[in-house]
Amino acid sequence: MILIGERINAGFKDIKNAIVNKDGDAIKEWARKQADANATYIDVNLGTASNKPEDLCWMIEMVQEEVDTLISVDNNKPSMLKEAVPVCKKPPLINSTTAVEEKMNELFPIVAEHGASIIGLVMDEAGSPKDADKRVENAGKIIAKAMEFGLSPEQIFLDPIVMPLKFMQEQASAVLKAANQFQLFSDPPCHIVCGLSNISNDTKHQKLINRTFLTMLIANGLDAAICDVMDKELVSAMLTADLVMNRQIYADSYIEAFSKK
Amino acid sequence: MILIGERINAGFKDIKNAIVNKDGDAIKEWARKQADANATYIDVNLGTASNKPEDLCWMIEMVQEEVDTLISVDNNKPSMLKEAVPVCKKPPLINSTTAVEEKMNELFPIVAEHGASIIGLVMDEAGSPKDADKRVENAGKIIAKAMEFGLSPEQIFLDPIVMPLKFMQEQASAVLKAANQFQLFSDPPCHIVCGLSNISNDTKHQKLINRTFLTMLIANGLDAAICDVMDKELVSAMLTADLVMNRQIYADSYIEAFSKK
Repeated sequence: MILIGERINAGFKDIKNAIVNKDGDAIKEWARKQADANATYIDVNLGTASNKPEDLCWMIEMVQEEVDTLISVDNNKPSMLKEAVPVCKKPPLINSTTAVEEKMNELFPIVAEHGASIIGLVMDEAGSPKDADKRVENAGKIIAKAMEFGLSPEQIFLDPIVMPLKFMQEQASAVLKAANQFQLFSDPPCHIVCGLSNISNDTKHQKLINRTFLTMLIANGLDAAICDVMDKELVSAMLTADLVMNRQIYADSYIEAFSKK
Repeated sequence: MILIGERINAGFKDIKNAIVNKDGDAIKEWARKQADANATYIDVNLGTASNKPEDLCWMIEMVQEEVDTLISVDNNKPSMLKEAVPVCKKPPLINSTTAVEEKMNELFPIVAEHGASIIGLVMDEAGSPKDADKRVENAGKIIAKAMEFGLSPEQIFLDPIVMPLKFMQEQASAVLKAANQFQLFSDPPCHIVCGLSNISNDTKHQKLINRTFLTMLIANGLDAAICDVMDKELVSAMLTADLVMNRQIYADSYIEAFSKK
């Protein structure tokens, strides 16, 4: 599984303050913690703290001063990405495009130029899809356009768009069904990713819902997640699901081995 | 979800002793505990403690003296079932047939006569299947034969045959794939069931593996499980997966509500 650490996001107050006050230590601390928890990528998101490219670049630099983990640049504006992506020492994951033609035409050249990867949210001009079929249709548009720009399936992370279970319960099984079908677009398939914590928005049993939905998504082909990599029960469930999918070799102490990596 | 309580099985020493000593209280205690934990069926298995129909009938009677939960008669011998099934006050679940023609010809008339249900293990003369395709092929044989005897899809519980993750790791994803395809045989579909604890045989993290695999199976259509209904974390994961599949209406206190039922 590809784990994308969600914590360096200005939606969290400590990160917002760090950006406003240019407090690099707060950024570095979360970079270190998430890297130690075996994050594959560290997501970096300015949120509403700033709209200046130099602030996004500064965040990336702070992370890279502390760890050599891959960066997920969580921004969808070409003007921002054109400055931030070259700052990344290794090809980053861009988070994200939609299936909107104009957006893809702006972002895919940046992905191609830097050998980067990109998350493709399966929404279009009409907004978020309401069923599995629309999700698959939009995924198809993203794949087709990516091929035009010479991108390989491995550079595309399809995101079926997770909705809150509490408010749009019927969407959860549509997301599973869509993810399952995303696997059929190519061989090898694209990556399949989600922003996990949305599923448990405003619920009482958030962590239980997060980890249960994660394993159900993995059973339908998901191989990447933007999530709380510090949640040990979530990671244990993910590791177990990886064994079930035969992606890792079974060992009695598979959880202990992962936490000591 | 249909929960089948696994505990009244002579594979457990206390149950074996209870059968040998005709200690009805030990049977009743486990019947009560599992019924209180919301088991839909209580499985009753003689194991190697006895091969006498009257002992199986006695076990069923002990359970029925204590609770009015449905019975799963865990035996595959027609001579035993012909005596035990009529003892059940409500139509039981027979556990189980295979896809072997002769076996189905013996057992399906008993199912039909009593309006019972039956678990169909997707194995044949050649033994346990090694891949998803063979599981689906054997499931097809079971469904076709059941239709000949006038059984409805709701009377059939297809079991994709769970193998130990530790020793046959590649079988786990084959089981998921097969379960997914079992859904396509009819509309409404058959039930899909498994003997869950086999997945974690001889592993260090048994309960984690059980509950993770259960939710992954539910994501692929499983709606019944023979399992430890006393395992609260397992049941919480199952309830959460049921919400994801939109089988139960979301409520903040869905776990608390279930445990108070």
